[in-house]
Amino acid sequence: MKSKILIIGVTGSLGFDLAKASVQASHPTYGLVRDSAFSDPNKSQKLQILSDAGVTLLKGSLQDEESLVEAIKQVDVVICSIPSKLVLDQKLLVQAIKRAGCIKRFIPSEFGSDPDKTRVSDLDYNFYSRKAEIRRLIEAEHIPYTYICCNFFMRYLLPSLVQPGLKSPPREKVTIYGDGTIKGVFVKQSDVAAFTIRSVDDPRTLNMALHLRPPGNVYSMNELVEIWETKIDKELQKTYISEEELLIKIKETPYPDNMELVFVYSAFVKGDQTYFDIESSGRVEGTQLYPQLVYTTIIEYLDTLA
Amino acid sequence: MKSKILIIGVTGSLGFDLAKASVQASHPTYGLVRDSAFSDPNKSQKLQILSDAGVTLLKGSLQDEESLVEAIKQVDVVICSIPSKLVLDQKLLVQAIKRAGCIKRFIPSEFGSDPDKTRVSDLDYNFYSRKAEIRRLIEAEHIPYTYICCNFFMRYLLPSLVQPGLKSPPREKVTIYGDGTIKGVFVKQSDVAAFTIRSVDDPRTLNMALHLRPPGNVYSMNELVEIWETKIDKELQKTYISEEELLIKIKETPYPDNMELVFVYSAFVKGDQTYFDIESSGRVEGTQLYPQLVYTTIIEYLDTLA
Repeated sequence: MKSKILIIGVTGSLGFDLAKASVQASHPTYGLVRDSAFSDPNKSQKLQILSDAGVTLLKGSLQDEESLVEAIKQVDVVICSIPSKLVLDQKLLVQAIKRAGCIKRFIPSEFGSDPDKTRVSDLDYNFYSRKAEIRRLIEAEHIPYTYICCNFFMRYLLPSLVQPGLKSPPREKVTIYGDGTIKGVFVKQSDVAAFTIRSVDDPRTLNMALHLRPPGNVYSMNELVEIWETKIDKELQKTYISEEELLIKIKETPYPDNMELVFVYSAFVKGDQTYFDIESSGRVEGTQLYPQLVYTTIIEYLDTLA
Repeated sequence: MKSKILIIGVTGSLGFDLAKASVQASHPTYGLVRDSAFSDPNKSQKLQILSDAGVTLLKGSLQDEESLVEAIKQVDVVICSIPSKLVLDQKLLVQAIKRAGCIKRFIPSEFGSDPDKTRVSDLDYNFYSRKAEIRRLIEAEHIPYTYICCNFFMRYLLPSLVQPGLKSPPREKVTIYGDGTIKGVFVKQSDVAAFTIRSVDDPRTLNMALHLRPPGNVYSMNELVEIWETKIDKELQKTYISEEELLIKIKETPYPDNMELVFVYSAFVKGDQTYFDIESSGRVEGTQLYPQLVYTTIIEYLDTLA
């Protein structure tokens, strides 16, 4: 018997992929949807597709505890996929899960770097501390959980070859942050969804952080540039920006425009996605647990941009 | 019992997605791989992922009939996914399938507009007539088949909003071919793979052309531009190119650079992807047959480009 999964944020980009993966894996799938979504033409198109695919759409919102409890009581697993700035809105959800008392696994809205592992001090406007706060709340309430640490989505930063502000990869000049040797991780969003869904009924991921660090998806900026140069058969002109220069740039750029630079700093200067060993720090890795999941590599993704 | 599927072209972009979808749907999956692929770093990385996922890799090539027969004898279904210019190399494959005598379904390398429906006369350098030639050969040999007519992949032409030569969507000026009212179809490659795999054991697709024309993926150029303008909150300056002007441009641009224009002409001026009714012309449509498959809409894809 596959667990029944409730997805919150099903009309969002990741939430939709999660619903797709859940249906594909034959989980009875539910989506929590606000009333207003049905009258938004973009969202209603997605809701129609999901409904046609057998997803049960339940009306409710993160602001309405009764609607949450009612929806949660119908399922075994809750996955939350909401915008980062709304992360703290999960507090009521955690209370509702506690009240409902039936949830075997809760996956909170994270889907990035591990907030308990990042080392960006006070640069991130509490981006990570808010996620950590929700973790602590879940743990204090003894709700069974899995945290998904997928690092970067490929569609974020990789289309520009980690050049904040650009929309496509550079063909003349490239800026490299730090010395270019620190490795970051990119995973395709639909693969993140597939790994997430695979983990929900797995005892090995219970009360664990599931990291995604696929062998084909871990590269430094120097390596990314080299791969790209080979693909376009051209050497790019390189400018190196030191850690000190990057920190000044982050402080001089107004929020939220500077957040891309903060993420670049975290991943490619501090090494927050790769400085630690996954197993020995009490975490599990997705491609180790599920080798049967075929995933898209960075090299293949860059092929589509060339 | 799910059919055993052999995929030819498994290190290619679509072939890899087909293998991914096949494994995900629990089909025993096989890939035909040339010896040289194992020493190509890009391909060997993909082969490792496939092998880890349980795909059986068989050595062989489209030029070696014995290797083909040996591979085909181990499976029930053959799916071919090779570059368009190699389409006629499937002749030996058709003979090998005939000799092996065990294949319940053959899906030849098409994955575009229906070659029996396009109306581009002699403009396409036999792009479509070669595909039609393979169809006729399959039918003459009485090999059970499904033809997959998925129209455009989203990663082709859509990233530029149908502006041949551009790599990203325009933010100032846009060129519209014809009067901009003719509708074309774009489907995400991974969705094409999922629909293809879903069709292999389905009696309704036996000896049929399976078209993909999802309701959320059929738009005219005028509509695409309007959606994009809403997304970027800006009106683009429009230039209309008439059918006559486009035909001159196609003739003046050397082959193969002019093929993008030929495809634009076929889809958005002639209407080759949508001028006919699918059912009444003896074909079947994917989202009609498989509403349970969640697919990515054009609006959602354009969101990722904004």
